[in-house]
Amino acid sequence: MANFPLILRVDCADRPGLIHAITGVLGRHGVNIITNDEFVDDASERFFMRTEFVGGHATREDLCRELAEVLPDGATVTIGGDRLPHVVIFATREHHCLGELLLRHAHGDLGASIDAVVSNRAVLRELTDRFDVPFLHVPHEGLSRDAHERAILDVLAPYAVDHLVLAKYMRVLSTDFIHRYPHRIVNIHHSFLPAFVGANPYRQAFERGVKIIGATAHFVTEALDEGPIIAQSVVPVDHSFRADEMARAGRDVEKIVLAKALKLVFEDRVFLNGNRTIVFD
Amino acid sequence: MANFPLILRVDCADRPGLIHAITGVLGRHGVNIITNDEFVDDASERFFMRTEFVGGHATREDLCRELAEVLPDGATVTIGGDRLPHVVIFATREHHCLGELLLRHAHGDLGASIDAVVSNRAVLRELTDRFDVPFLHVPHEGLSRDAHERAILDVLAPYAVDHLVLAKYMRVLSTDFIHRYPHRIVNIHHSFLPAFVGANPYRQAFERGVKIIGATAHFVTEALDEGPIIAQSVVPVDHSFRADEMARAGRDVEKIVLAKALKLVFEDRVFLNGNRTIVFD
Amino acid sequence: MANFPLILRVDCADRPGLIHAITGVLGRHGVNIITNDEFVDDASERFFMRTEFVGGHATREDLCRELAEVLPDGATVTIGGDRLPHVVIFATREHHCLGELLLRHAHGDLGASIDAVVSNRAVLRELTDRFDVPFLHVPHEGLSRDAHERAILDVLAPYAVDHLVLAKYMRVLSTDFIHRYPHRIVNIHHSFLPAFVGANPYRQAFERGVKIIGATAHFVTEALDEGPIIAQSVVPVDHSFRADEMARAGRDVEKIVLAKALKLVFEDRVFLNGNRTIVFD
Amino acid sequence: MANFPLILRVDCADRPGLIHAITGVLGRHGVNIITNDEFVDDASERFFMRTEFVGGHATREDLCRELAEVLPDGATVTIGGDRLPHVVIFATREHHCLGELLLRHAHGDLGASIDAVVSNRAVLRELTDRFDVPFLHVPHEGLSRDAHERAILDVLAPYAVDHLVLAKYMRVLSTDFIHRYPHRIVNIHHSFLPAFVGANPYRQAFERGVKIIGATAHFVTEALDEGPIIAQSVVPVDHSFRADEMARAGRDVEKIVLAKALKLVFEDRVFLNGNRTIVFD
Repeated sequence: MANFPLILRVDCADRPGLIHAITGVLGRHGVNIITNDEFVDDASERFFMRTEFVGGHATREDLCRELAEVLPDGATVTIGGDRLPHVVIFATREHHCLGELLLRHAHGDLGASIDAVVSNRAVLRELTDRFDVPFLHVPHEGLSRDAHERAILDVLAPYAVDHLVLAKYMRVLSTDFIHRYPHRIVNIHHSFLPAFVGANPYRQAFERGVKIIGATAHFVTEALDEGPIIAQSVVPVDHSFRADEMARAGRDVEKIVLAKALKLVFEDRVFLNGNRTIVFD
Repeated sequence: MANFPLILRVDCADRPGLIHAITGVLGRHGVNIITNDEFVDDASERFFMRTEFVGGHATREDLCRELAEVLPDGATVTIGGDRLPHVVIFATREHHCLGELLLRHAHGDLGASIDAVVSNRAVLRELTDRFDVPFLHVPHEGLSRDAHERAILDVLAPYAVDHLVLAKYMRVLSTDFIHRYPHRIVNIHHSFLPAFVGANPYRQAFERGVKIIGATAHFVTEALDEGPIIAQSVVPVDHSFRADEMARAGRDVEKIVLAKALKLVFEDRVFLNGNRTIVFD
Repeated sequence: MANFPLILRVDCADRPGLIHAITGVLGRHGVNIITNDEFVDDASERFFMRTEFVGGHATREDLCRELAEVLPDGATVTIGGDRLPHVVIFATREHHCLGELLLRHAHGDLGASIDAVVSNRAVLRELTDRFDVPFLHVPHEGLSRDAHERAILDVLAPYAVDHLVLAKYMRVLSTDFIHRYPHRIVNIHHSFLPAFVGANPYRQAFERGVKIIGATAHFVTEALDEGPIIAQSVVPVDHSFRADEMARAGRDVEKIVLAKALKLVFEDRVFLNGNRTIVFD
Repeated sequence: MANFPLILRVDCADRPGLIHAITGVLGRHGVNIITNDEFVDDASERFFMRTEFVGGHATREDLCRELAEVLPDGATVTIGGDRLPHVVIFATREHHCLGELLLRHAHGDLGASIDAVVSNRAVLRELTDRFDVPFLHVPHEGLSRDAHERAILDVLAPYAVDHLVLAKYMRVLSTDFIHRYPHRIVNIHHSFLPAFVGANPYRQAFERGVKIIGATAHFVTEALDEGPIIAQSVVPVDHSFRADEMARAGRDVEKIVLAKALKLVFEDRVFLNGNRTIVFD
């Protein structure tokens, strides 16, 4: 096996002795554990484990198979970490999240390779071109949502995509589209205390006089903006912020939270547990 | 006039020359400005000013009258800061906010005097007694809300109260009660990104897997938990927090935010502007 | 063994197979692991593990002995969590940290029992009395540091103390005194970016115009204010804060950081690794 | 005068009646004040005022002259805000701060125009080229510091520079060089609680086990890394961060703090008051 660290992930029903059983298999094959995180969720009675390891003289397939034998039925066992994930970024008009990800990509700080940028507008083409990343313009005008999504799937067809990233993409994705990438789509959206629903949330937040602006990065599920949360952060604002200044303050926190959440996802640190995440950071 | 700083507050429709007119009156009477804050809200076209000053040879009444003469009709002009506000705390079962306020009160750090604690339960009597503050137990069992509030008003009658503080008071106040203390009741409540409505918000926040727990201090208006926000803050949580641990993390931020908001109110730093606050901190 | 969770702590030289060996011993005795944290420090090549468990049919002594047999020489193995730690608080004049700890103690939120308060001044007696905790006044006037510390040790003699907490205690402890409580004394002190040494750090921070005020909770070692850090936090300040207002802002963060650090210590979550801590929070 | 807001800045010895005198001059010329901030520093007895205004029928020169007549001798009065500042960025190897500033520049979010990037290394040429900004490579090898700085001054000669920004520029500037740009050079550097001096501060911070990593943006004065602080921020870290991971966590906060500080400087919101700043944000 490889000399650089690989990442073992186990997700299964909880029962006594799991750690001992797993570490037994690993030890028998000469695997050397570097870091190990486990969590048992009382509510769902599920066991989650993430292990970084080096060495070992078994193939990855053999290791997974032997682990499955000592785990409860239905256990999910994967070994990864040997290659950069491939991602496609979706964006519309706002440049701050896309620019942040392109910068990190260009300098090897993203933890993934950006294969392309998809946009329903042309406005971000210039920014994307600066970083020599393909810009796939798929206009939505005159198309039904279904037709637009089919056009997107067509341009995505040549790419082997691990994750889609919605970096201020302003179109709602259909359930059918989302199901093609189960828990592989990450979105960023503004968040407030309290929350504001409906149009123009920054206007509403301004009118309520909030003192904090936040951002939430989450997996996309059918329930719009309500998938499992990966990371959140906030910045303070005050009465001197107009609605557009609140939005600008929100942009700084959005891009940092999105980059942080993606790093966690790309390093295989995020597990799903119903509508919650387990994050081993 | 006094040798210690007084606080002038002006709230009126905006028009050119207000600062010059106000400082002209102050200067004519030998008033020495220590700090001065102004804000003009574009949306409401209102002008807000808070001035700390010493010296001057006019009475406070004369000063207010002369200021009103140079200001638009309907201007609110007050001069305060010469005495500690008197407050009564309302609480039910949770001790963290009440304890924080009593501690500060006992050491002169609150910026106000706590004249009494009102509670629908007896459980916080022991804590209140430790600080030699009257504990007014007004049980609600067997009483209609109106009857309970009348009983509260009866026990409050001997007190000249500037502000009421709801320090985790778990009863909903009637509109009629609130109108007796317009913008003089401050409440603290938990806040989440996103917000959760209905019963047991910490349970809901837990089930959604939020990564941040917050608290909001606000004036109480008829719209429950939706009055003008004075201060907010948050703390990070993660998947290892059970619902009760999220609640515990929330308590630390609640008490600090409440104390901070009250300090701002007691120092006359908070203005109302529709459903928003202007906070000169 | 007990039905409530016990806490196993292991601290030893790292080598392959430790987790498997430890979980093997635990499993053989029917112990049920609730949560498990491990960390291997590359620099020191040491292994740290904290396990909460229930059940099991061995005595605690047998379990520790069997674990020691499968671990490298010199391993530290302890099992605790079955009783509240007993602490004595040292304070001088400032009430904010002491008050915070007494409040939590009174309501069972501290995670420890405060057996007494020691002070070189009488000023905090009234506060301590409010919570029915013995106040041990040991004046230092006219005494050498050695004589004062002997007097303190005399009043402490009747108490079986697990930890000492310096809650703004303004006397420097001798190396000899510190050695009597190795890594069992926790201190809180203000912190700045950049740091300021010498007298009146808040005055220096003010003169430099810092924008952030912080607090650090740490174990006390011979190197004054430089022992292993347990927890830190900050609050923003600005140019309008005078030196005394910076100090007041610092107090809120000091008391919360101290309470947080103590909770971590009392729950056996903090390990020492040279001059650093490992904190399983 | 212009229809868009101009910015008046006044910095002078304090005396009674300044605001009234200044607003009198402004009102006489039909100037309409949009926002107004004042601060009097007790320690230095200086008065600072920043006013955004529109309208008025005097020239800017006349306005400044008339204001000077009503102010104490030695007052500094400037009116600006009518053009974007021109800046040159200095960098060496690290891309995160430079990339952040170039991105904002490209999208009109910086509040200034980046005229060129100066570097003693070639490594950041590719990044700079992406944004069509001149990259001025001035190698230092084989040159004395004086000779290197003369070479830099030569390449800067064609540019009318308002501010220099040290975006992780790893060369120490001479006092002579700094005096050519008095309080017009902004630097960003890492900050810790406590501070660590000497080589490799991240290594030292790691060895001490700090729980917080910070960044400070400040004006450059002769005292290296000790000029007046403009903005600061922090991020939490823990024992699982190696020294290089602490440095990476520090990079995110460095770039955001630098961008925030520059926005404040470019909007004329920062005043100098001895070794402190007054920041009207």
